[in-house]
Amino acid sequence: MSGPLSTPLGPGREFDRIRQMAERWKYLAKGLGDDCAFVDVGGATLAVSIDLSVEGVHFRRDWLSPQEIGYRAAAAALSDLAAVAAEPAALLLALGAPEQEPEATLHAVADGVGEAVRHAGAVIVGGDLTRAPQLVVDCCVLGRCDAPVRRSGARPGDVLVVTGSLGGPLAALTAWQAGREPSSDARHRFARPEPRHQAAAYLVRLGARAMIDISDGLGGDLQHLLAASRVGARLEMDRIPVHAAAAREAQVAGEPVWAFAARSGEEYELLAALPARTTEAMLRAAPVPLTVIGVVEAEPGARAFLRGVPVALPRGFDHFAGEGR
Amino acid sequence: MSGPLSTPLGPGREFDRIRQMAERWKYLAKGLGDDCAFVDVGGATLAVSIDLSVEGVHFRRDWLSPQEIGYRAAAAALSDLAAVAAEPAALLLALGAPEQEPEATLHAVADGVGEAVRHAGAVIVGGDLTRAPQLVVDCCVLGRCDAPVRRSGARPGDVLVVTGSLGGPLAALTAWQAGREPSSDARHRFARPEPRHQAAAYLVRLGARAMIDISDGLGGDLQHLLAASRVGARLEMDRIPVHAAAAREAQVAGEPVWAFAARSGEEYELLAALPARTTEAMLRAAPVPLTVIGVVEAEPGARAFLRGVPVALPRGFDHFAGEGR
Repeated sequence: MSGPLSTPLGPGREFDRIRQMAERWKYLAKGLGDDCAFVDVGGATLAVSIDLSVEGVHFRRDWLSPQEIGYRAAAAALSDLAAVAAEPAALLLALGAPEQEPEATLHAVADGVGEAVRHAGAVIVGGDLTRAPQLVVDCCVLGRCDAPVRRSGARPGDVLVVTGSLGGPLAALTAWQAGREPSSDARHRFARPEPRHQAAAYLVRLGARAMIDISDGLGGDLQHLLAASRVGARLEMDRIPVHAAAAREAQVAGEPVWAFAARSGEEYELLAALPARTTEAMLRAAPVPLTVIGVVEAEPGARAFLRGVPVALPRGFDHFAGEGR
Repeated sequence: MSGPLSTPLGPGREFDRIRQMAERWKYLAKGLGDDCAFVDVGGATLAVSIDLSVEGVHFRRDWLSPQEIGYRAAAAALSDLAAVAAEPAALLLALGAPEQEPEATLHAVADGVGEAVRHAGAVIVGGDLTRAPQLVVDCCVLGRCDAPVRRSGARPGDVLVVTGSLGGPLAALTAWQAGREPSSDARHRFARPEPRHQAAAYLVRLGARAMIDISDGLGGDLQHLLAASRVGARLEMDRIPVHAAAAREAQVAGEPVWAFAARSGEEYELLAALPARTTEAMLRAAPVPLTVIGVVEAEPGARAFLRGVPVALPRGFDHFAGEGR
């Protein structure tokens, strides 16, 4: 595809809307469609991303403490830098809060943002503080990026790998939505996602051709990576690394664990396409577990298999598809 | 003041809160307190700012069209680049909207953002689209900045100048709040602020030592500039250039026109400190009207005079001071 949206997006109403906006902006829009925007400055490339978290949509105060809300909002934005293998440099925080919000809430949100920024080795350089009907936490992150890994470089024959294990955040959400308190490991996985900066750097050393972070669920984000790269993939669903808490919740729900893990969003794990030459030894030496879950193919589309039998790939989360949360 | 907040802020609860956050972040916070953050990349300096606009707080749909809402949100962010004399390069748009919001609204907001970006000679490089209980328009802007003008460089003897004329946005707000339709010039001034990029470049050529954009009102923003520069000022209130619509509204309200103009926020005009050597001819050659309204003095504090008689300087708008809008 030519035109303003230089990196094609996968299906979904949210992405249809982004496509339509890009069409309206025409030549004003440059390079939309990756986890980060890239801005060339003084001979260097800066990766930039913005991530808006709204109370009642992205978080609930009865589920998370204000400090966790701040941490999670910042971690989600920083994860976009990991997804393009940019080194975190700086964060700007725009914070909206009700007029009568206690000072302690704002301090706790600030502490949480600070914690994520410190973990990432970045600094806080600015922001905006304003009144809003509910808590709004918006983080803009900037990272230095000598060799950005985009979504668009996957080639037939590449192996698809994911970092860590999937399903933990959905396990926590499922428990909360059923009126139960999540297990502590599921809750921790939801409240304290760890952006995969070190893993991203290691994946670059292995020659990563394309990457994306799993924010909308493996099913949805894989579609974005494949669309951007104009390729397809064969996935082996029984290879998906499943978080222990997800296995328990899936069993309670009577859902296959692989399907539960593949539709879990806000994972902030990385999905990467690595060259076929990648060995088991290379994967084992990674700073976080790396698991091969499939292979890139020339034919467009994602084909999921469970021990040789075709199965449906769960779709990703779409903010405008009416699923609600 | 040493410590994380490298540029001191003026008085107000909003700024107390920013100070407290910076204290909590300690060494994590770098250079907060200017209109923009500055990030050094590859030998160049990038100015970055983030500006959060929330429906019901910063705009109302019965006052502005969706296109004007988008334009104004982007112009407000771009104005922060003008305030530090950075050349606009790129904008990221994070847009939140209710689930059932018509496509046409989002398209119109996008068109308005695009219009402001085109006027500024920048491009749109990324963003985030999400569900929110009301319209939330968050713009992050990046600009190239060889020689940033900060708030902190004013020195005793400098002259204080403002661009354009003040009071137009408050004239529109006053009419709306009284249930009247604003005059078309007042409405235009509110809905279509023009970030002063050309004026900023000209002020740099005149040797501008300190600048700020007037977003919280001349009274409030002058206090920030003086606090940052650790100086004071004498203001001649009868010299303040007053927008014609403001003069009319002030008369209706029985308020001195200078007081009305000095408390009007969201002007997006620039306030600058220029060297004492600045001549009338230099000011006349500017791309927008420049008016001398006072002089910088060594003694801290802002002292306002009306034809030689001391008067109170109206305070600026503070999002957490309970004035509401």
